[in-house]
Amino acid sequence: MLIVMQPNVTEDKVQKVVDFIKEKGFEAHISRGSDHTVIGAVGRKVIDKRDIELLDGVREVIRISSPYKLVSRVFKETDTIIDVKGVKFGGGNIGIIAGPCTVESYDQMDITAAELSKYGVRALRGGAFKPRTSPYSFQGLGEEGLKILREVADKYNMIVTSEVMEVSQIPLFIKYVDILQVGARNMQNFNLLKSLGEIRKPILLKRGLSATIEEWLMSAEYIMSGGNREIILCERGIRTFEKATRNTLDLSAIPVVQKLSHLPIIVDPSHATGLRYAVDPMSKAAIAAGADGLIIEVHHSPETAVCDGAQSLYLQQFDELFTEIKGLASVIKKKV
Amino acid sequence: MLIVMQPNVTEDKVQKVVDFIKEKGFEAHISRGSDHTVIGAVGRKVIDKRDIELLDGVREVIRISSPYKLVSRVFKETDTIIDVKGVKFGGGNIGIIAGPCTVESYDQMDITAAELSKYGVRALRGGAFKPRTSPYSFQGLGEEGLKILREVADKYNMIVTSEVMEVSQIPLFIKYVDILQVGARNMQNFNLLKSLGEIRKPILLKRGLSATIEEWLMSAEYIMSGGNREIILCERGIRTFEKATRNTLDLSAIPVVQKLSHLPIIVDPSHATGLRYAVDPMSKAAIAAGADGLIIEVHHSPETAVCDGAQSLYLQQFDELFTEIKGLASVIKKKV
Amino acid sequence: MLIVMQPNVTEDKVQKVVDFIKEKGFEAHISRGSDHTVIGAVGRKVIDKRDIELLDGVREVIRISSPYKLVSRVFKETDTIIDVKGVKFGGGNIGIIAGPCTVESYDQMDITAAELSKYGVRALRGGAFKPRTSPYSFQGLGEEGLKILREVADKYNMIVTSEVMEVSQIPLFIKYVDILQVGARNMQNFNLLKSLGEIRKPILLKRGLSATIEEWLMSAEYIMSGGNREIILCERGIRTFEKATRNTLDLSAIPVVQKLSHLPIIVDPSHATGLRYAVDPMSKAAIAAGADGLIIEVHHSPETAVCDGAQSLYLQQFDELFTEIKGLASVIKKKV
Amino acid sequence: MLIVMQPNVTEDKVQKVVDFIKEKGFEAHISRGSDHTVIGAVGRKVIDKRDIELLDGVREVIRISSPYKLVSRVFKETDTIIDVKGVKFGGGNIGIIAGPCTVESYDQMDITAAELSKYGVRALRGGAFKPRTSPYSFQGLGEEGLKILREVADKYNMIVTSEVMEVSQIPLFIKYVDILQVGARNMQNFNLLKSLGEIRKPILLKRGLSATIEEWLMSAEYIMSGGNREIILCERGIRTFEKATRNTLDLSAIPVVQKLSHLPIIVDPSHATGLRYAVDPMSKAAIAAGADGLIIEVHHSPETAVCDGAQSLYLQQFDELFTEIKGLASVIKKKV
Repeated sequence: MLIVMQPNVTEDKVQKVVDFIKEKGFEAHISRGSDHTVIGAVGRKVIDKRDIELLDGVREVIRISSPYKLVSRVFKETDTIIDVKGVKFGGGNIGIIAGPCTVESYDQMDITAAELSKYGVRALRGGAFKPRTSPYSFQGLGEEGLKILREVADKYNMIVTSEVMEVSQIPLFIKYVDILQVGARNMQNFNLLKSLGEIRKPILLKRGLSATIEEWLMSAEYIMSGGNREIILCERGIRTFEKATRNTLDLSAIPVVQKLSHLPIIVDPSHATGLRYAVDPMSKAAIAAGADGLIIEVHHSPETAVCDGAQSLYLQQFDELFTEIKGLASVIKKKV
Repeated sequence: MLIVMQPNVTEDKVQKVVDFIKEKGFEAHISRGSDHTVIGAVGRKVIDKRDIELLDGVREVIRISSPYKLVSRVFKETDTIIDVKGVKFGGGNIGIIAGPCTVESYDQMDITAAELSKYGVRALRGGAFKPRTSPYSFQGLGEEGLKILREVADKYNMIVTSEVMEVSQIPLFIKYVDILQVGARNMQNFNLLKSLGEIRKPILLKRGLSATIEEWLMSAEYIMSGGNREIILCERGIRTFEKATRNTLDLSAIPVVQKLSHLPIIVDPSHATGLRYAVDPMSKAAIAAGADGLIIEVHHSPETAVCDGAQSLYLQQFDELFTEIKGLASVIKKKV
Repeated sequence: MLIVMQPNVTEDKVQKVVDFIKEKGFEAHISRGSDHTVIGAVGRKVIDKRDIELLDGVREVIRISSPYKLVSRVFKETDTIIDVKGVKFGGGNIGIIAGPCTVESYDQMDITAAELSKYGVRALRGGAFKPRTSPYSFQGLGEEGLKILREVADKYNMIVTSEVMEVSQIPLFIKYVDILQVGARNMQNFNLLKSLGEIRKPILLKRGLSATIEEWLMSAEYIMSGGNREIILCERGIRTFEKATRNTLDLSAIPVVQKLSHLPIIVDPSHATGLRYAVDPMSKAAIAAGADGLIIEVHHSPETAVCDGAQSLYLQQFDELFTEIKGLASVIKKKV
Repeated sequence: MLIVMQPNVTEDKVQKVVDFIKEKGFEAHISRGSDHTVIGAVGRKVIDKRDIELLDGVREVIRISSPYKLVSRVFKETDTIIDVKGVKFGGGNIGIIAGPCTVESYDQMDITAAELSKYGVRALRGGAFKPRTSPYSFQGLGEEGLKILREVADKYNMIVTSEVMEVSQIPLFIKYVDILQVGARNMQNFNLLKSLGEIRKPILLKRGLSATIEEWLMSAEYIMSGGNREIILCERGIRTFEKATRNTLDLSAIPVVQKLSHLPIIVDPSHATGLRYAVDPMSKAAIAAGADGLIIEVHHSPETAVCDGAQSLYLQQFDELFTEIKGLASVIKKKV
């Protein structure tokens, strides 16, 4: 932390700032320029920098170390590869997850999984507990949905991911699911994050609708500081003024996250755009931008889907997209 | 719901749309203009309008009823007044809540409450479980904090509000607290909202950082549809591109909410701006705009506050502000 | 500017940075802490800080002086009062400007001005050249509109403001108008700003739809650096995700601007909200927040207004609002 | 336009609305459902829908035709291909434009153009009049810069684009430049747009920092309604809360624009991200998403560049990127 004092500040005020930060557990290093006196504060304590900014004679306080540590590339230089029963994310590996918005029935999941596994997809998605904006909307099949997911996945040798909404649901998810998904609205549900830090299954952490990349990485830090090191980040669109798409997919987050962190980052083009016709181009764009994977909504009959049919690809559409994705990946030297 | 068909659409396509919506549980009314055929869909079912938009020949689908009902002014025309042991919010009553960001000790709360009650403030705030962006920050005193709040409040005949973060904490809050606060990050924690719908204590529902007013009212609907009708809405700033303030306080939300809903709306200028010097003008602005109350961070010694000292008013500052607020309220004919 | 080097950086890299900034016209002051070496760069040149950030061994570059100078409160400590023929903005004076969106006819302006001056309003607004999103919309009366404005203003001893859209229109505006308004869409039309810096009439500079406060002040700096020191800033709403109002009125900009700059800041609640029913509460909020004035759309017959009738107050409504504004102003000790 | 009346509205109120819209030049078609009476207003006049919404008994007014016509895909179904001396944008053709932020000298442009044309690039960019946020920054070489651009382009058989900032500069640009660029800050400089509608040279229209796609297309409509049909749209990032990148590149705009309009859309990854390391992945993402071209900042010596060196690619970097782009284009069956 650098504390920049106002020009021509008195010695007395500098001393008071030094005393203040020492009391808070920091070391202080004063350096005097012709224009500004700058105090360097060194230490590992967490402090609200505004507290120092309010001291007399202080012009500005500048944080120079990032607030997250374990998720940072400074902490671990090489790409983390999350390997879930052979499905890999990160380090040159592109993991593809597909499936319906919500688990509706055994038959639905069976048809979908059969087809997807034929294309070569090995990771299945499907919601069992649904976060719905309206209390009057369908809220998911609950445990029954998780059971179906597991059964079907086992039948086709696939892995499954599904969204966990609450601390009390965690044991259920450990039993049935391979990757626990944290939804955008729960990205800063700190109690949930803490509890997920204590388990030993991979977490798919979606970015919040209005979360900065720094806050997103802080949420990953919550999980990792609990000891769970298997985190896959998922960009799913941020909220902006543009209403033509449901959200604005922030693909620049891919190179930025890859620079700041060692964790893999995948993209959800379905929730980001909310438009079926935009899922194909945005999937390809994500791959070309260097994403470590995709999570795509696919339905065997979107017209009758219980939710998000409008943004779900037909199985046939997905198949064609998948072929193109493999072509693009080979151009940028990655494995799907 | 109005379904606008494309110009010169065939009879066949119109019929298919009619069949589709009937199957979904709606009645259909067709009207043919010279330019556009419009199908009115009447019913109470929840449907994703994009599902209809994808049908052949459909140009656009327009929702004409709001998705919330119980919180709407159409449902209840008169202002709801929340009366918590004599502290009133709404219907011309301005309720003032003040206190520190977090409960630090009995002495701190005692000093604060003594002073505030002397000024005439009758509602106390203080965090016991703190949602912190960093896992390395102070996380609150927990139940001990709630106990202190209760004791001090009883001593000075005040009511208390504190933030509940998780379903499992609700019984504790019912025991100690008069108004349960839902934080911005939990505005769409639907499990929490549902559980709060089942209790019978007033809820202070903060607006999410990137929540539209409609989504915010939908979250209130979640609580109200469970049977709990005592909800106070709280505007606390939304996330925008402007970084000079922590968030952008959206005071226009006051007239908009008051037009759409019968529920009271109060304002939190402290979290919205994050700047002590902006709390005073924004508090006054909120009152002049017609807010039904304020929740303000005050600390007897902001320099040594455990959190948010930089945005906390000194007790003396609050006292002066409170006097001006009473003056403003009388101009617009409201009671503080 | 502070250049923070990476931990354990070599002497050689530090020297290269020093050489680089000296070449760019800065003095360099090196200070070594236990953790970080920091180079202070002192000078008045403008430099893109990213250029230094790309040098080897540099961790971060921090600008510590604001990019604007003449508009800053550091440059001039006391409030600037803009006095236009007795109508004052700033330094405790609240200036009220009212009138229709656009000048439609002599009669319209005559009726409006007669009424407004009766209430005590002395500044009239009205568009003559209209910036319209659609090429098919009414584009204003042009010079004819300015003439009407001038004539009517002279008749009722009022001053007038109108929006100038282009460099070539400036001579016309100098002839007819007292305050030249720069619209939100032209806030960064740098050629226009430069030309307005060369004249000697007050400028009303609206904030751009997505302009930060810093950029806004930079645009004022453009005008002021040309020698024109009479600038009134005008907050008129920023673009956010919220669609219930046309824009989000950022009233926190009032205290922030007043802290950073000596220039007066007024508020346009009509364009900000786009809703007639929100103009009244937002006008009062602006005054309570400390605004140095208001510019409000008023029409003698909003139903037949050529533009923005939906956000225009009836004359009667304005009269009532004006009375309340005077009451609020007296509470916070300001003169209307 | 559909006018939805309130439930159980009286006949009298319906009639008044009908009269109102007829007076404004529309035909009215009434249709009565069991729930809502809906009035269809048919006509080509431009009207502010809020004017109708304020009439008694009206619940909501819904616009069902887009406000732009000539730029719409409804108006022209096939892709417009802009062919500038053999460099093509649109209809399966990817046009690549490269060059420095600003023209600094003949030698600089000569080195750059020599190298770029060797790689196969045939379109050169370079600023001569620079829109700078600070009045104290370098403002460009002016006409001298345009002359250099022209000379160098002719030497290497290239075309050139440069930004025009003002109506009065247009003749100069017609003389020297092949494509006239309208910068983001001028996207709603309506006087400039109108004047550009009257010339017969292609226009590169950048999206404004906070412009919706609809507003952007409206600005293109301004130009096209003047008779100039050669417009290339350019996505260059929108302003959001995320500060890790200069702007947020909205690649979803590509499929959305291509659905709504027949005009080609290209992407500027340099200004969008402001980060050299993000230009490469975002360029590839744009191509994979279906962009009709790219405009990329390249400098022969970014360290000494007068502006935007930090986001400029080295010539060598560009060469490698260009090779990958050709690979990606062939996967999605497009010509570079």
